[in-house]
Amino acid sequence: MSIINKAAAIGGGVIGAGWVARLLLNGIDVSIFDPDPEASRKVGEVMKGARRAYKQMLPGGLPKEGKLTFAKTIAEAVADADFIQESVPERLDLKHKVLAEIDAHAPANAIVGSSTSGIKPTDMQVAMKKHPERLVVGHPFNPVYLLPLVEIVGGQQTFPEAIEVAKELYASIGMKPVVVRKEIEAFVGDRLLEAAWREALWLVKDGICTVEELDDIMRYSFGLRWAQMGMFQVYRVAGGEAGMRHFMAQFGPCLKWPWTKLMDVPEFNDELVDLIATQSDEQAHGLSIRELEKIRDDNLVAIMEALSKQNKGKGWGAGALHKDYTKQLAKLAAKPAAKADGKAKAAKPAKKAATPAKVEKPVKAGKADKAKKSKKKG
Amino acid sequence: MSIINKAAAIGGGVIGAGWVARLLLNGIDVSIFDPDPEASRKVGEVMKGARRAYKQMLPGGLPKEGKLTFAKTIAEAVADADFIQESVPERLDLKHKVLAEIDAHAPANAIVGSSTSGIKPTDMQVAMKKHPERLVVGHPFNPVYLLPLVEIVGGQQTFPEAIEVAKELYASIGMKPVVVRKEIEAFVGDRLLEAAWREALWLVKDGICTVEELDDIMRYSFGLRWAQMGMFQVYRVAGGEAGMRHFMAQFGPCLKWPWTKLMDVPEFNDELVDLIATQSDEQAHGLSIRELEKIRDDNLVAIMEALSKQNKGKGWGAGALHKDYTKQLAKLAAKPAAKADGKAKAAKPAKKAATPAKVEKPVKAGKADKAKKSKKKG
Repeated sequence: MSIINKAAAIGGGVIGAGWVARLLLNGIDVSIFDPDPEASRKVGEVMKGARRAYKQMLPGGLPKEGKLTFAKTIAEAVADADFIQESVPERLDLKHKVLAEIDAHAPANAIVGSSTSGIKPTDMQVAMKKHPERLVVGHPFNPVYLLPLVEIVGGQQTFPEAIEVAKELYASIGMKPVVVRKEIEAFVGDRLLEAAWREALWLVKDGICTVEELDDIMRYSFGLRWAQMGMFQVYRVAGGEAGMRHFMAQFGPCLKWPWTKLMDVPEFNDELVDLIATQSDEQAHGLSIRELEKIRDDNLVAIMEALSKQNKGKGWGAGALHKDYTKQLAKLAAKPAAKADGKAKAAKPAKKAATPAKVEKPVKAGKADKAKKSKKKG
Repeated sequence: MSIINKAAAIGGGVIGAGWVARLLLNGIDVSIFDPDPEASRKVGEVMKGARRAYKQMLPGGLPKEGKLTFAKTIAEAVADADFIQESVPERLDLKHKVLAEIDAHAPANAIVGSSTSGIKPTDMQVAMKKHPERLVVGHPFNPVYLLPLVEIVGGQQTFPEAIEVAKELYASIGMKPVVVRKEIEAFVGDRLLEAAWREALWLVKDGICTVEELDDIMRYSFGLRWAQMGMFQVYRVAGGEAGMRHFMAQFGPCLKWPWTKLMDVPEFNDELVDLIATQSDEQAHGLSIRELEKIRDDNLVAIMEALSKQNKGKGWGAGALHKDYTKQLAKLAAKPAAKADGKAKAAKPAKKAATPAKVEKPVKAGKADKAKKSKKKG
């Protein structure tokens, strides 16, 4: 069961809305601030996709969803939150502005997580005048409601206790927190992604392959490996009886060979963007983004479910976690009223009540009025 | 059904033995040459793992296995093969020696595939005096008996027809051939792997994370994505309604940021090897290579099976192929005698006959003697 009582989300783009979806589906109330007039619709779209995916994970019914409130200001959104996740665009000036405001209005003991893909927390927390020590990077991966990883990075002013609490908070909503040991730009995940991305741009630009061919090369080979073991464990096994030292000795010399073009960076111009965008259109074979998104989510759920049955039934990697997570959610779905703090959830709008598997609970009188305020609920 | 009548494998290491396993399990006879006195035992180990994996794919029973013969020379191994796969160590001088010998003794119409991870076919085929035009790189991924991808690369002397035939040959044993459009060192798969590998070495060397943390970061996030869509399709979806151009515009500027250390290469010394090997030992949590190998294979089968049920039951990516492949094998298992060329398979040694799911067929007298020669069969 989650240890988050009330969450705030600042920013409702693909990542921010993904956080909102994960939190709501864990039965946690979320207050969101996003100045985009389209925010409500966009968050609603993501929620639709997330609900669809969670229904597959939980055929016995979803937990009672948390209540979503659209706040008019950051101050309003964070006022009574114990966990705040910032997911605004990747500009340091904007991060400063938003974090300063969060810091000024959030309860002193609230943890502030930033979804940044690469900005160092030290560079961000300087804007927090009251409690910079509670800022952590909590870098998730899209789709946030399904992919469990969250990279946690502390800055120079971050307290070790804040990192510990953040780990627990993220884990309580089914995530896999990995604490990055030293603060560097782009952390670990995006370092690896950026390296592969740069190489991929070269390969397409140089006409070695199309984006579809490159994607096929990934998903019919090492993509399948990396979904269940990472690079090092895969190579450990590949090294066979001779082991990791043998493997290293064998492939070490490649470092001196011209096996990447990474000493250089491709020029990012319209021609390159056109080439890739056009090839990407072809690759989609007429499937819309929404259709591809559904296929992606179904695939991810199916892969995690498949992994949850491996390793003599104990589950393996993301599958073991998936097993625990779905168990936790099923428990929550079975007893929504048994939450430790006794808080009740607001009534669901008519559309939601139609969900057959959902266990509906009587609305407590005192909270019913409050529920009416959340008109924009996705 | 495979269009390969008789295959030869030159080299029986992890990759060579993986080819042998895939071929035998498709009911194809294989003649192997490997000077290693341990070759028979090593190939046997790989066969054991491959059989185990295929039994999960085919609960209704495996096709009758092809016959494995250990040849004393390359000449003997390739004498009557229509498909020859070379998997010797990555040294150009050795490749030359081996390919010259294959070329001298193989039937003129046999296709020669090389498992090289990075050497250009143009640089290899110069050693083939008779028929350099039939050399293609057919670069597989470990474990070869499970992972479907094979990168096909032709050299300057390779005939387009050879590439077409190679595509068909590999596809006939359940693989996904992707033809690389221009010949470069390391092709596409290993370019991407090498880029990620170099970055990973830096991250571990610099103490940003351990190998286990790095692997977790991969397998709880983008590894799950890449098992079913590649990098470009994933980003297309992540770009959301705004599409691929928007995504490119958003992340293009990162290319100028210090988001990788790839402008430089880590020094490959004993210290780095020790660090990684030691951390890898810790990561294994006491599981032996064999145990990890079984877990890996089970995971791969489960992931491909999970993907085979997606996309409204049509299967998706490697899952769609897996569906076709297992169907093809099941058909082969049901009617082993119906093969077009009417060739019979030799009797299996006692150990193999114990496999309960296997359909045993009466041995034709003429081939029974020949079978006795294959004492080293794994």
